[in-house]
Amino acid sequence: MNIAKMIDHSLLRPELTTDDVRRGCEIAGSRQVASVCVRPSDVGIAKAELSGTGVLVGTVAGFPHGDTRTTIKVAETRELVEAGADEVDMVLHIGRLRSGDTAYVHDDIAAVVAAAQGRIVKVILENAYLTDDEKITGCRLAEQAGAHFVKTSTGFAPGGATLADIRLMRAAVSPPIKVKAAGGVRTLDTLLTLHEAGATRFGATATEAILDDHAARERGEHPTTAEVPAGGY
Amino acid sequence: MNIAKMIDHSLLRPELTTDDVRRGCEIAGSRQVASVCVRPSDVGIAKAELSGTGVLVGTVAGFPHGDTRTTIKVAETRELVEAGADEVDMVLHIGRLRSGDTAYVHDDIAAVVAAAQGRIVKVILENAYLTDDEKITGCRLAEQAGAHFVKTSTGFAPGGATLADIRLMRAAVSPPIKVKAAGGVRTLDTLLTLHEAGATRFGATATEAILDDHAARERGEHPTTAEVPAGGY
Repeated sequence: MNIAKMIDHSLLRPELTTDDVRRGCEIAGSRQVASVCVRPSDVGIAKAELSGTGVLVGTVAGFPHGDTRTTIKVAETRELVEAGADEVDMVLHIGRLRSGDTAYVHDDIAAVVAAAQGRIVKVILENAYLTDDEKITGCRLAEQAGAHFVKTSTGFAPGGATLADIRLMRAAVSPPIKVKAAGGVRTLDTLLTLHEAGATRFGATATEAILDDHAARERGEHPTTAEVPAGGY
Repeated sequence: MNIAKMIDHSLLRPELTTDDVRRGCEIAGSRQVASVCVRPSDVGIAKAELSGTGVLVGTVAGFPHGDTRTTIKVAETRELVEAGADEVDMVLHIGRLRSGDTAYVHDDIAAVVAAAQGRIVKVILENAYLTDDEKITGCRLAEQAGAHFVKTSTGFAPGGATLADIRLMRAAVSPPIKVKAAGGVRTLDTLLTLHEAGATRFGATATEAILDDHAARERGEHPTTAEVPAGGY
């Protein structure tokens, strides 16, 4: 199992310096992860750093609150794609979803999918703010709007990916739609547990520790310990 | 002292429903605060709700991380002004400030000020991530770029307004530039303490409690208790 190619190495913290971003891209390149997930203003830096590595450049739109206007999410997505982004993780409008305004939520996502011109679009639900019914509705709207992934969290809300949510989201969308776990995926065991529940992509910052642990286990070192914290990941 | 006219009633949480926003605007109108500060997608709702009340409609750009591209902050600001926003609270690029890229930070702010076409622009530094030197640099860049206010925090970082920061920011900018305190301004005493230190505008969600307390004191009820928490506000 190629764990590295399931990881989006996350470089989204607002306080990261340009050197932090460059170092993060170096790690992503040398570890051969699926992608980096960088801040919108860093797409050019990441493209340059990762040129020739085969590692994709992902970024975010309407992040992390999802409450920018649709026209701005669209303009942002279009610019990010022009700047070379291969994947765009957008945040749906959490407040409108909670208000039952499904048409708004659908159209907001569909407009971003169109602006992405075929690039992978992942829709972040930000589960920490949603009931299970709202999570299911959000997943279905994302699928109907043409998104490729549903994603649990931004990593900036009071909660991240949980085992129960991965199962719920996996069941809420059709097989071609994938599930990304993000927020609190800090260990190999968490990743493997969520993978078994249906997640195939993982947002992580502890990428090196996770991959080092995996390599050690492949060599027969470190016993694999089950880890399913009650409070989620 | 007109406390209400120093308050920007904050309605920025990503999970607020449309009804929450409407109720918040009602409070802002009846309490006659300076403004509401709403999410970009809610400017139209707030304009309609507050029509004829004299309460201004403020909103945010590049919020809360400040790491969207300058072109997108500009497009967003232009649209928000067209939608009727009277004030725009933008987040500067925290990572570029920490990287010493002062030209980027200046130009990013200046572009938003230009796009705001004379509307009040407040520049959020997000002090929680900055050293004192970086806070001072951020304040000076905001002034040089033509902003009208410097503001401590978004309310979504690990820290908010502190007494020390208000003093620092007040000293870092010229007299015409104003200082807004936001993040943790939950009581009248906090507001009064920060006001004495130089802040003249306050982002608050506990607006009703603060104004009720003030009215009670004006009537001679409730003794004023000094409150200067060691850990800041």
